[in-house]
Amino acid sequence: MTGKVYLIGAGPGDPELMTVKAIRMLKEADAVVYDRLVSDEIIAMANPDAKMIFVGKSPKCHTVPQERINEILAEEALAGRTVARLKGGDPLIFGRGSEEAAHLVAQGVEVEYAPGITAAQGAASVTGVPLTHRGLATGVQYVTGHRQADNALDLDWKKLADPDTTLVVYMGVANIGQIAVGLMTEGLPGSTPVMAISRVSSPEESRMVSTLNRVAQDTRDAGLKPPTLFVIGKVVSLYDTALLSQEIEVAAHA
Amino acid sequence: MTGKVYLIGAGPGDPELMTVKAIRMLKEADAVVYDRLVSDEIIAMANPDAKMIFVGKSPKCHTVPQERINEILAEEALAGRTVARLKGGDPLIFGRGSEEAAHLVAQGVEVEYAPGITAAQGAASVTGVPLTHRGLATGVQYVTGHRQADNALDLDWKKLADPDTTLVVYMGVANIGQIAVGLMTEGLPGSTPVMAISRVSSPEESRMVSTLNRVAQDTRDAGLKPPTLFVIGKVVSLYDTALLSQEIEVAAHA
Ligand SMILES: C[S@@+](CC[C@H](N)C(=O)[O-])C[C@H]1O[C@@H](n2cnc3c(N)ncnc32)[C@H](O)[C@@H]1O
Ligand SMILES: C[S@@+](CC[C@H](N)C(=O)[O-])C[C@H]1O[C@@H](n2cnc3c(N)ncnc32)[C@H](O)[C@@H]1O
Repeated sequence: MTGKVYLIGAGPGDPELMTVKAIRMLKEADAVVYDRLVSDEIIAMANPDAKMIFVGKSPKCHTVPQERINEILAEEALAGRTVARLKGGDPLIFGRGSEEAAHLVAQGVEVEYAPGITAAQGAASVTGVPLTHRGLATGVQYVTGHRQADNALDLDWKKLADPDTTLVVYMGVANIGQIAVGLMTEGLPGSTPVMAISRVSSPEESRMVSTLNRVAQDTRDAGLKPPTLFVIGKVVSLYDTALLSQEIEVAAHA
Repeated sequence: MTGKVYLIGAGPGDPELMTVKAIRMLKEADAVVYDRLVSDEIIAMANPDAKMIFVGKSPKCHTVPQERINEILAEEALAGRTVARLKGGDPLIFGRGSEEAAHLVAQGVEVEYAPGITAAQGAASVTGVPLTHRGLATGVQYVTGHRQADNALDLDWKKLADPDTTLVVYMGVANIGQIAVGLMTEGLPGSTPVMAISRVSSPEESRMVSTLNRVAQDTRDAGLKPPTLFVIGKVVSLYDTALLSQEIEVAAHA
């Protein structure tokens, strides 16, 4: 009997931000495959008898290659297990869920998804800063600031530099300086507000509000490390008034 | 004693797609303010003693204006109630959550958010069609196809017509023809695959896979009505192989 694989979005960190479906699937699983974007509290919800397989960084800092993760998922399912593959945020947004699914489907293994709150929505909900808002942003765009090996950043600055769209940058810490310059070169004002949030909705959450022309320096000064999300655009101007009592941000300057 | 308002994302329809936090807040509330995007099963989870306030379309098809909704929320909270404001999807994506919050905060009423699975993520999870995927989409953008009164559609076709970005159109049924023409004029191939989904994750869910040059006609022929979401881009080419057994789509042509 072939098992199946649940591709589960674990959300940004806080276990209360998981969906009921995600928790149900996690508890049902005989094997749980997870990485470092998933919090300990969430992993602790698994069936105590489940086989736990960590595929994040090893003590020597080697990550398990994606091909090997694909194989592990298939092997576990073909051995008859119900496998929960836990992912930070949503499995289908910068999550490689569909790559894993393609490998599994090709081997005749059934997959099912539980969506998760993606980091951008988590950031919005904890700060009250909306992703769209009449008069400030007619839409929202998610991009990755990560480059493949030695390649240049594969971003089309002209298309991204839209003052009426909220731009959310995933995996952007290393290249935020280059991203800011690209956007300013294509016309976004240096005064465009930017919010950076690390570890959204976890006890280690930290925040910073800056502007496009200072964000690279401020990110370095604040010591923000991955996972950090950048939200760029006029919506960030609502930060101070979005909630009655806003958490004080870790700002590099006042 | 002033109460408070929970701005709650109810997700796309299936109650299992709600977050634990959203359900906890809904059950805690003394008053529940909801509209027609929220399913009956979800509304039924409220405390049976809660005051239920419907602000969707009246029998005569008048919608309660946003200003009046803002006032109702403030009145209920200022009367000391814990108010749950339920929204389809996520409150901070085309949800006017931040407009309601601004009104409440100005009156000294505390607001707190529970994020929800937005329609785009719901659509991805039920079909397995990813929003981003290596080699097919380096990012994703959400726009609205809705126009204000008699205004023209306020979309920048040149910025939207990006073959490497997944474009998700909310509120697009009425104007999908104009949207498709705009995108093709700026260079997106007519053969670009498009997926349309109505009532994602509910028993009335229906789906259609088409291409940019036929989507307007196919949407009419299939009789798709709001709420319908359009996903445009190369990721839709994965539709047939994304799950082991895919639901048959309601396609206008084979
Ligand atoms: C490989 S991507 C995974 C995204 C994930 N699938 C999602 O939907 O949120 C990792 C990036 O997501 C963002 N991210 C994920 N979880 C986060 C969190 N709790 N706080 C801040 N950013 C987060 C960061 O930009 C991080 O570099
Ligand atoms: C006013 S917007 C609200 C969006 C919502 N806040 C969200 O995050 O999904 C309404 C539009 O969202 C989309 N939508 C919401 N729920 C949907 C569902 N269950 N199925 C398909 N589309 C949906 C449709 O495009 C609809 O016209």
